[in-house]
Amino acid sequence: MAFGWIDERTELRRRSGLLRTLRPRPARSPLLDLASNDYLGLARHPEITGAAARSARHWGAGATGSRLVTGSTELHAELERELAAFCGFEAALVFSSGYAANLAAVTALAPHGSLLVSDAGNHASLIDGCRLARGTTQVVPHADPEAVRKALGTHDGPALVVSDTVFSVDGDAAPLSALAAVCRERGAGLVVDDAHGLGVLGAGGRGAAHAAGLAGAADVVVTVTLSKSLGSQGGAVLGPARVIGHLVNAARTFIFDTGLAPAAAGAALAALRLLRREPERAARARAVAAELYTGLTAAGLAAAGPDAAVVSVRAPSPELAVRWAADCRTAGLAVGCFRPPSVPDGISRLRLTARADLTEAQIGRAVRTVRATRP
Amino acid sequence: MAFGWIDERTELRRRSGLLRTLRPRPARSPLLDLASNDYLGLARHPEITGAAARSARHWGAGATGSRLVTGSTELHAELERELAAFCGFEAALVFSSGYAANLAAVTALAPHGSLLVSDAGNHASLIDGCRLARGTTQVVPHADPEAVRKALGTHDGPALVVSDTVFSVDGDAAPLSALAAVCRERGAGLVVDDAHGLGVLGAGGRGAAHAAGLAGAADVVVTVTLSKSLGSQGGAVLGPARVIGHLVNAARTFIFDTGLAPAAAGAALAALRLLRREPERAARARAVAAELYTGLTAAGLAAAGPDAAVVSVRAPSPELAVRWAADCRTAGLAVGCFRPPSVPDGISRLRLTARADLTEAQIGRAVRTVRATRP
Ligand SMILES: Cc1ncc(COP(=O)(O)O)c(C=O)c1O
Ligand SMILES: Cc1ncc(COP(=O)(O)O)c(C=O)c1O
Repeated sequence: MAFGWIDERTELRRRSGLLRTLRPRPARSPLLDLASNDYLGLARHPEITGAAARSARHWGAGATGSRLVTGSTELHAELERELAAFCGFEAALVFSSGYAANLAAVTALAPHGSLLVSDAGNHASLIDGCRLARGTTQVVPHADPEAVRKALGTHDGPALVVSDTVFSVDGDAAPLSALAAVCRERGAGLVVDDAHGLGVLGAGGRGAAHAAGLAGAADVVVTVTLSKSLGSQGGAVLGPARVIGHLVNAARTFIFDTGLAPAAAGAALAALRLLRREPERAARARAVAAELYTGLTAAGLAAAGPDAAVVSVRAPSPELAVRWAADCRTAGLAVGCFRPPSVPDGISRLRLTARADLTEAQIGRAVRTVRATRP
Repeated sequence: MAFGWIDERTELRRRSGLLRTLRPRPARSPLLDLASNDYLGLARHPEITGAAARSARHWGAGATGSRLVTGSTELHAELERELAAFCGFEAALVFSSGYAANLAAVTALAPHGSLLVSDAGNHASLIDGCRLARGTTQVVPHADPEAVRKALGTHDGPALVVSDTVFSVDGDAAPLSALAAVCRERGAGLVVDDAHGLGVLGAGGRGAAHAAGLAGAADVVVTVTLSKSLGSQGGAVLGPARVIGHLVNAARTFIFDTGLAPAAAGAALAALRLLRREPERAARARAVAAELYTGLTAAGLAAAGPDAAVVSVRAPSPELAVRWAADCRTAGLAVGCFRPPSVPDGISRLRLTARADLTEAQIGRAVRTVRATRP
């Protein structure tokens, strides 16, 4: 029977404690949320949800077609202009998701015969981009510019170095300046995924590339998502105008995908404007992360020092990670629980995300709950 | 210089008349729209845009995380239940786009060492799914069940046959019943992409699989998009509960992607309910396509007989296709213009889409305009 093989896999997953099921949440959850990526607390901000609502009514519920046919509205263009200007790049292109933006950037910027050099801790969407690209991928050890230099030395044709700026599971930052220097030395392009940097790092949340002085560089392309700090959905690629123009013509996830829904574009634009008006939100998200880290390590928990707004705490095993997260939930706290195959190194973790709108009391409660439930 | 190679490509595209640029549209376009995929005219329907707006205000502007973490709301679950029930399947899973749904279904349903048999006219997202899958892909001639049977005969392990139900460029239908019979005979799974069938084909728009008597079959999986007939954004996979449960655990574009924005989920749900209340919209979309076809061929234009709501008209060359579409636009009519590399066979076309809400006067005007501007 065609899909009969699935039952065995499911049983295996069940037995090893790795079977996942969905747990739909209500609109007003009683849980304290340290699991989402809503770093600036904007997803439910009335100014942002209001913009989503107005955009849907004014522009329609969907974009109605590919961005190349009927799917480009003046709203998309406005978002692209303001996003590029905010992050310091010449141009931007909006996609239906950050995942699609990463597939686009990696595949379209690696011409036939390219070498792609990919950090071992990269996000699934960058990995899939490398797999789809018409080149050879070399995976290098995590956050290791020397390894990148060596990999580039083995190849003569066009080369692309691909990295997260902030790694999604552990929340550590990539050595961006060193990566950019190595790329420049070898004439390689650099694509960095700032999904967890935009809105959190850099002056007023302008992102990791801006913080590293790489904004607007001719050989650097940044991808972002609109679904984390900007509280919406979608993704974007930022870079030189020549690169953006090329993506319009060559990126399959742009050409063959319906444009981002107006509500999502409008919400992201409103979030960007709010962030420009309240730049202190970015620093506050980082400060909350630092407080969480201090509170957790003071109790001897194995947390990683956060470079952005993600605080990762090691768990002894997948089973105990699941139980730990479940006990937190019972105590009123939602935290992320990452276990194989979502972790690159097989080590399960709790993942706590700082939000700029958490109060001191909420931070204290979160720390006490994670400590009290440790396995 | 890292991205210097792009300039030459861009120049080549410009010289061969294939350079695409974006043309953002205003909210209220003066053009008569026969270019979008808004087959039922729901993207701007106040009931649908109102549902999008309410959903954003009630549920937030974004889903805030992966569906496995904080990104599953009761709204997503409701949409999944109603979509599965409407199309006649056991279960459904919603994605951020139809593109992501296709990547998920194809990759997660082809275990290591699979044979993937893919129709030569398949959509880019199915092709990318095959490229990402851990198996071998055999591309078979367009709409040819005998070729599929032969391909399956060359392989002993698990096999997956992958096809659009309605091909996006020419609007012709796949031989679904014959494909399903061949798959069943050989124990292969069948994944069909009903992006252009949902809302148009089958009783009350229940889709091509429903029309072919394949709804609820244990060895058939259907993918749909929420961005065409349902006027919103997003995608879904419909199938047996075991398949959907497996996708939750194995599909990378589900696990590592932010959940669909509530506004888009709410709009799609409202569109589905409206379609259930007004099932005649599906038949009307097909009737409009038939009228367009009759009007165009009566003038000797080389149109393909539409199996759904897409009417494709051949153009003599890419340049003349572009000029033809531009002349239509000057005359107040928006039509799609497909040329390489968006066409599988290198033949450029105008692509007209029927909408259920077109009036007889509008249909007449569209036909007259395409005829009057023919190159
Ligand atoms: C590092 C990283 N890149 C890309 C993405 C994908 O972005 P999106 O969810 O907007 O598709 C995510 C998470 O979802 C991520 O963590
Ligand atoms: C046949 C087909 N499948 C899948 C898709 C992708 O769906 P979406 O645009 O919702 O990502 C499209 C068009 O966009 C399509 O035409």
